[in-house]
Amino acid sequence: MARRKVIIDTDPGIDDAMAIFFALCSPELEVIGLTTIFGNVHTSLATINALRLLEIAGRTDIPVAPGVAAPLASAYKGPVPYVHGEDGQGNTHLPPPASTPLARAAADFIIEQIMAAPGEITLIALGPLTNLALALRQEPRIAQHVREVVLMGGNAFTIGNATPAAEANIHNDPEAADEVFGAPWPVTMVGLDVTHQVIMDSAHLAEYARMNNPMAQHIHRILPVYVELYRLSGGLDGIYIHDSSAVAYVIDPSLFTTTAHPLRVDTSDGISRGKTWASVSQYRTLPPWQNRPPVTICVAVRGAAVVALELERLRHGLA
Amino acid sequence: MARRKVIIDTDPGIDDAMAIFFALCSPELEVIGLTTIFGNVHTSLATINALRLLEIAGRTDIPVAPGVAAPLASAYKGPVPYVHGEDGQGNTHLPPPASTPLARAAADFIIEQIMAAPGEITLIALGPLTNLALALRQEPRIAQHVREVVLMGGNAFTIGNATPAAEANIHNDPEAADEVFGAPWPVTMVGLDVTHQVIMDSAHLAEYARMNNPMAQHIHRILPVYVELYRLSGGLDGIYIHDSSAVAYVIDPSLFTTTAHPLRVDTSDGISRGKTWASVSQYRTLPPWQNRPPVTICVAVRGAAVVALELERLRHGLA
Repeated sequence: MARRKVIIDTDPGIDDAMAIFFALCSPELEVIGLTTIFGNVHTSLATINALRLLEIAGRTDIPVAPGVAAPLASAYKGPVPYVHGEDGQGNTHLPPPASTPLARAAADFIIEQIMAAPGEITLIALGPLTNLALALRQEPRIAQHVREVVLMGGNAFTIGNATPAAEANIHNDPEAADEVFGAPWPVTMVGLDVTHQVIMDSAHLAEYARMNNPMAQHIHRILPVYVELYRLSGGLDGIYIHDSSAVAYVIDPSLFTTTAHPLRVDTSDGISRGKTWASVSQYRTLPPWQNRPPVTICVAVRGAAVVALELERLRHGLA
Repeated sequence: MARRKVIIDTDPGIDDAMAIFFALCSPELEVIGLTTIFGNVHTSLATINALRLLEIAGRTDIPVAPGVAAPLASAYKGPVPYVHGEDGQGNTHLPPPASTPLARAAADFIIEQIMAAPGEITLIALGPLTNLALALRQEPRIAQHVREVVLMGGNAFTIGNATPAAEANIHNDPEAADEVFGAPWPVTMVGLDVTHQVIMDSAHLAEYARMNNPMAQHIHRILPVYVELYRLSGGLDGIYIHDSSAVAYVIDPSLFTTTAHPLRVDTSDGISRGKTWASVSQYRTLPPWQNRPPVTICVAVRGAAVVALELERLRHGLA
């Protein structure tokens, strides 16, 4: 079976690191590049962390293309050190990477790869959608030539985590997200509707310490900050694996239940900014949702199976 | 047991008519007045319908105070004849009422009654909250002297019915709702989170035809338009009894499960206008929700018990 080519757009980030390693350990996927974006950390640090993670994995053959530093139409709200650590990697303060990023921008890399291999490339987006929106603006034909876009972000039928309304990735660039959800390409939203049902508990997390490979050992080292946040914020004995859920969807969509509706993002300056609204009415569609393509929205997931899959893959190591 | 004095603010409306009759047939309640508001119909027609309903019930001793004709800060979107009929009463086209409304405005009536009987009056609001907001502006002390405010409106954890974001009553005057939810009085929100779990099916509805009293007979006559809407819009074999759910809460709050959180209404001009957002975070409260009083939010209901209670009361007739 040919591996599916994926580009991962990412802002590592603790759960980004887990998701990237999950992808690298999965024989169904061929990671052909990482592109970086602000979100959990500034883009510059996201790029450094992407390089560091590939070095840890022994996959410096995979290129890293640096993304833009700010949202399309608003200011970047800044990193969230209380979630991911000051360095985005759980305050482990790794040395600078020996490898360097590509000289071309994330959007250019995305366009180039998709246009060079029509119908083959899947974009997995784990952060704000600014690079994807810029690529679409620059070369709208990527919408026809991408295989699929799978993103972690949004909350169609549940409350947010950045605000009561909005999920953090979408909240970081609502305008970009609205463009991505409005483009004529196949988009699947893996949002809080499902990621809040994918929980690695403390027993699962303890397994990383016992796995004899550098990726699992790195995850083990960076986890404490993240685990502590969840303990404090919700009394959760474990963590949600948001970003890995998007990777799991690409590997095995049968783990998820989906629905499909036109989707708009609140781009106002009000309290709902960044909220993703699906139009589910069966008898009328209001103007903001008219002529918008259906977005595949994950609404349920076999969470335990996703967790088991990720742990199994890390146990085996590089695919 | 002393009856609890209630003022019902209403825009009749088919389910408003059901709720008003439900209240009039309940020995726990003493309806001391109706106040009217735009929403399902224009305020002028709401006033006429309120008078008609009291005539049908033989309770023309209850005064009707006409409310304002438009929202605080936006234009009234107009009636919804496809939901409630051109006359708001299922196209039954009743003759004009013989009785007349009070010469004073709804807000004045509300203030007067609350200040004259501190701690005794419960406001049951079944429409947009404009009259309540105006009363609060005019006499803020009503917040200390009202017994309780129970309103049908909003959607804390579920999608809307006027738009994907918003419930119709709140959507009709978001600014008023935000003032009502922000005032220091005890407010309970009976919203779509619960009213979509209170369904009278066709077998229940058929009972009205067999009840030998003019209120039940009127309900039987006005129902077809409403029933047809639900059949078309969601394939529902029956109707949600939104407004009656608020009356049921006042009669027997033990039928409901509640939570309490600060609540804000989206008053932007964006796609989320009218959405009610509860701040449920356990570790931080964002500025828009800071220093806001907790609102009691109904999150679950014994729907079958509410339906049974309403039917039983109508069967017995006037309390």
